[in-house]
Amino acid sequence: MTFRTYPEFSTHYPLLLTTIMKRPVRMYPDQIGVVYRNPASGAYFRFTWMQWYRRVAQLANGLRGELEVHAGKPGAPGDRIATMALNTHRHLELYYGVTGIGATLHPINVRLSPQHIVYTIRHARDRILFVDDTLMPLLEGIYDQVKDVVELVVYMSDKPGLPQTRIPNIIEYETLIARQAEAIEWPALHEDVNATLCYTTGTTGQPKGATFTHRQLYLLTIHIMAQLAIGNTPDHDIADGLGVRLGEGAVPLLNTPMFHIHGWGQPFVAVYSAQKIVLHGTFTVQGFCELVEREKVTSVGIVATIAAMLLEYPDLKQYDLSSLVRVSVGGGALPLGLKRKLEALIPTFRMSSGYGMTETAPTIVGSFIKKTMVHLDREETDAVLVKSGLPILGVEVEVVDDEGRPVPQDDHTVGEIVVRAPWATEQYFGNPEKSAELWQDGWLHTGDIAKVDAEGYITIADRMKDVIRSGAEMVPTVLLENLIAMADFVHEATVVGVPDPVWGEKPMALVSVRTGFEATEESVIDFLKVHGVETGKITRWMLPKLVAITRDIPKTSVGKYNKKQIRDDLDRFLAIAKDVSHRHG
Amino acid sequence: MTFRTYPEFSTHYPLLLTTIMKRPVRMYPDQIGVVYRNPASGAYFRFTWMQWYRRVAQLANGLRGELEVHAGKPGAPGDRIATMALNTHRHLELYYGVTGIGATLHPINVRLSPQHIVYTIRHARDRILFVDDTLMPLLEGIYDQVKDVVELVVYMSDKPGLPQTRIPNIIEYETLIARQAEAIEWPALHEDVNATLCYTTGTTGQPKGATFTHRQLYLLTIHIMAQLAIGNTPDHDIADGLGVRLGEGAVPLLNTPMFHIHGWGQPFVAVYSAQKIVLHGTFTVQGFCELVEREKVTSVGIVATIAAMLLEYPDLKQYDLSSLVRVSVGGGALPLGLKRKLEALIPTFRMSSGYGMTETAPTIVGSFIKKTMVHLDREETDAVLVKSGLPILGVEVEVVDDEGRPVPQDDHTVGEIVVRAPWATEQYFGNPEKSAELWQDGWLHTGDIAKVDAEGYITIADRMKDVIRSGAEMVPTVLLENLIAMADFVHEATVVGVPDPVWGEKPMALVSVRTGFEATEESVIDFLKVHGVETGKITRWMLPKLVAITRDIPKTSVGKYNKKQIRDDLDRFLAIAKDVSHRHG
Repeated sequence: MTFRTYPEFSTHYPLLLTTIMKRPVRMYPDQIGVVYRNPASGAYFRFTWMQWYRRVAQLANGLRGELEVHAGKPGAPGDRIATMALNTHRHLELYYGVTGIGATLHPINVRLSPQHIVYTIRHARDRILFVDDTLMPLLEGIYDQVKDVVELVVYMSDKPGLPQTRIPNIIEYETLIARQAEAIEWPALHEDVNATLCYTTGTTGQPKGATFTHRQLYLLTIHIMAQLAIGNTPDHDIADGLGVRLGEGAVPLLNTPMFHIHGWGQPFVAVYSAQKIVLHGTFTVQGFCELVEREKVTSVGIVATIAAMLLEYPDLKQYDLSSLVRVSVGGGALPLGLKRKLEALIPTFRMSSGYGMTETAPTIVGSFIKKTMVHLDREETDAVLVKSGLPILGVEVEVVDDEGRPVPQDDHTVGEIVVRAPWATEQYFGNPEKSAELWQDGWLHTGDIAKVDAEGYITIADRMKDVIRSGAEMVPTVLLENLIAMADFVHEATVVGVPDPVWGEKPMALVSVRTGFEATEESVIDFLKVHGVETGKITRWMLPKLVAITRDIPKTSVGKYNKKQIRDDLDRFLAIAKDVSHRHG
Repeated sequence: MTFRTYPEFSTHYPLLLTTIMKRPVRMYPDQIGVVYRNPASGAYFRFTWMQWYRRVAQLANGLRGELEVHAGKPGAPGDRIATMALNTHRHLELYYGVTGIGATLHPINVRLSPQHIVYTIRHARDRILFVDDTLMPLLEGIYDQVKDVVELVVYMSDKPGLPQTRIPNIIEYETLIARQAEAIEWPALHEDVNATLCYTTGTTGQPKGATFTHRQLYLLTIHIMAQLAIGNTPDHDIADGLGVRLGEGAVPLLNTPMFHIHGWGQPFVAVYSAQKIVLHGTFTVQGFCELVEREKVTSVGIVATIAAMLLEYPDLKQYDLSSLVRVSVGGGALPLGLKRKLEALIPTFRMSSGYGMTETAPTIVGSFIKKTMVHLDREETDAVLVKSGLPILGVEVEVVDDEGRPVPQDDHTVGEIVVRAPWATEQYFGNPEKSAELWQDGWLHTGDIAKVDAEGYITIADRMKDVIRSGAEMVPTVLLENLIAMADFVHEATVVGVPDPVWGEKPMALVSVRTGFEATEESVIDFLKVHGVETGKITRWMLPKLVAITRDIPKTSVGKYNKKQIRDDLDRFLAIAKDVSHRHG
């Protein structure tokens, strides 16, 4: 790295993602920093920090020079660069190469419906789109709808050569970077330059693009790290030999997709911590177990669904997973039964919960025990660790009533979670109306409902309005309802989530049939397959698992579907619902 | 704490010291947060976090209301409030009460010469001065020279009532705060408002006042904490049961005076970490040992001189000091010999080094082992931990030659340390000339000389002004001092240059012998020949030409060897020094 002077740094030292990127290169240039296992072929790719850094520099040089990507200024984002990519070393390179030159990274959530993907690309006006080989079919399916916006597609693959494609403006990633210089002088950016653009899944209406600056992401990172330093270890964990600080020697597996709100911060935290980063492309239970065993993975963030899949995996005992001691569960609640079952199966596992959302970057609440609780026994600390948790360092969280007053800490009264944090998004990209709805009276309104106990621990009581969390994904109920209502035979339709041991929640549709028509539960699914899945409006996994044909759908006084009452009377509806998952295929 | 809306926070969320202060109050309102032991009476004072916070709020209300203290704006500091105080709960209250309302805290270094203290008060134009009872004689001695600047003196004591004094405008701290409201709405400050003003000890010329904003001190704090999270633990420490993370359960003794450059950051780090804070007023070896034993202190920062005092303390073995596992040594080099001797005496001790200066707030470099070194044996990790260390997170450090180019990492070539960090002072208060000298080409020039090894570890070789120029060569005095300190018989040792008609300067060593040991001037040279020359650590021409055995080595106010005073009183030391050049051969 060159010795460069920045006279302006004496008075305005900026908080930048390049600072994060440079640290492991300086500390451990010749140590393996990034390991990627191709989930299809099982092939491994290993990079020292210096090798990885040179690739980032080449990427940045290519973007800035050959591809003429422009940097932003405070209040004026640079060019938007999109990714349709899994968790690979290339995606990690894009995280730093794109932002390091002052452009905006837009990691596309490839699990959105194709229509929503099109919407986000057009809304962001993504100039260049980087795509994984495995995601080419998805891109080709929507290409006609974005080709007037996207000037260039960059194809990323472990195999050389371009595929047969009807996309005309396409080049290879490896070829692009191979012809660039390895040396680079990173620009002296302002810390308020936009770095990322992350769209919400858009449960109601269109996706909204939360924006994050370098300063915000740097502060997110350093606060997550500092929070780890003040974590308290229960006496029973120390007795079990699990109290030792991991330090830079931790080996995180970046399991959360990098297209899900910064992969829960890990692409920043792990790099700044100079830890060996393990990438698996996408989750498969076998690939996960192999990587943990081979690379001695110590830490991972997962959704409850993955924990359930591990529990069900028949070959689990064939792997040595004993290196894995920190398992954070996000994206939904951590069921106590699941935590206990999995920790019984793998004695070194320690699972804890957390809470965050796209707009909060996402990390703001984590379940950790107070120092006054270290003497509690395992059953008691488990009961604490399955709560959503406490605000992490630097975050203000309140649970408030309709008047904005904090609810009593009685572990019963619910209110809305409101948040302030140095890394909460300040605004949605090009959407002043929704930004104004998000921020009211200086608080970011999450739309999530929670209760608070006497010790201040927050527990999510209900989802944003009525969204269904199925696995890592949100099922946008209004979209489903609107689709079902389009069927001739449908009078009214509503969709709610019902608890499911594997997925957390699964969608149940209540449908009343128009007089004079006849329809079965299967008819609803058949209609959704034709008019939803095949048209790209929804994906197959969004299909309701249960359907009840009924004339008795509860309503509120203003005529809206009363989902709270449905949930309150759930047994009654479950008794008449029919399992239609066999019809999905 | 009240639920207050700050509409402006949605777009300009500030980094403020009030965020640090509020955390332990929210987390542990009813736990003991601050313990103070009066060093004269031995009496203990204990405060829960809520009690302490209410006192801070009362202080702030008194300052803002009754005393009409004005807040600052970016670029325009608020009123300066001075302290002449030891490490008490009241001083910690002033750290947050003064800064929380936007005023500037000026902690006066009471170990400066009275002339320099007068200079700093007049230069800062301190409106109000808070003084400890024990420091009243010092204040009274200079009062006539500052009375036109200082409008009010606030007297702080554990005993009620004002003393007999000729100072007319004086009120009691406890009376002032007792009549204030306990509730407060902290102002929504800009993060670039000045928070502290810390004068250098001014070994040459007048003291210079380094300024620090809320943002800078917040970033200092969060980076120190994050650095702790990624610390690596040697295998031999884990085997010794010393690898467990301390978390919020750590109990820091704030040993470094709070009037010394933010007490090395501990008044911020310990509060934000919600750890129980132990205050001793001022260091006495007996008070130190009593507090460690009674309060189960885990962590402390000390200067090498204090380590030497512990080593000499005859009653040391009467105390249980086994809770103390983290000992950071700053304010000068950590001699390997001293580390080994003290760790042999107290088996749980683990001492490490560091480097910083007033202008860097001060923490920027710390000695910690790399993750690639955890398997090293104790002797090998000791050799790493006595180096000044590596830059901590967020800090850029280079050691450069006269042209500003990094010196080779050969652990031999010396250069000047230059620094950039988000918390390095941007300017001296009211001193644009010295500010311009400090910052050149975007780097803060420390005036310290160091070498760098192949792994990037920096070792301080000398102050630029203390280095001995002997013939064409430079003799790094700190290197010699550390070598001499390794001898069993050595208690303390320092080396200065004295004029020489042939060589320009020649090295003279002042050595104090450990109680119970006997040694001559020749023993020092013999030791250096065996452990320095023969091991290749120094060359023969670096050997001191003169050695004086003496118990009277001058120290500065911060416990460093006072080389300026040695040079000023040179004749006295030359009179007792013995020419040992005959022993070199």
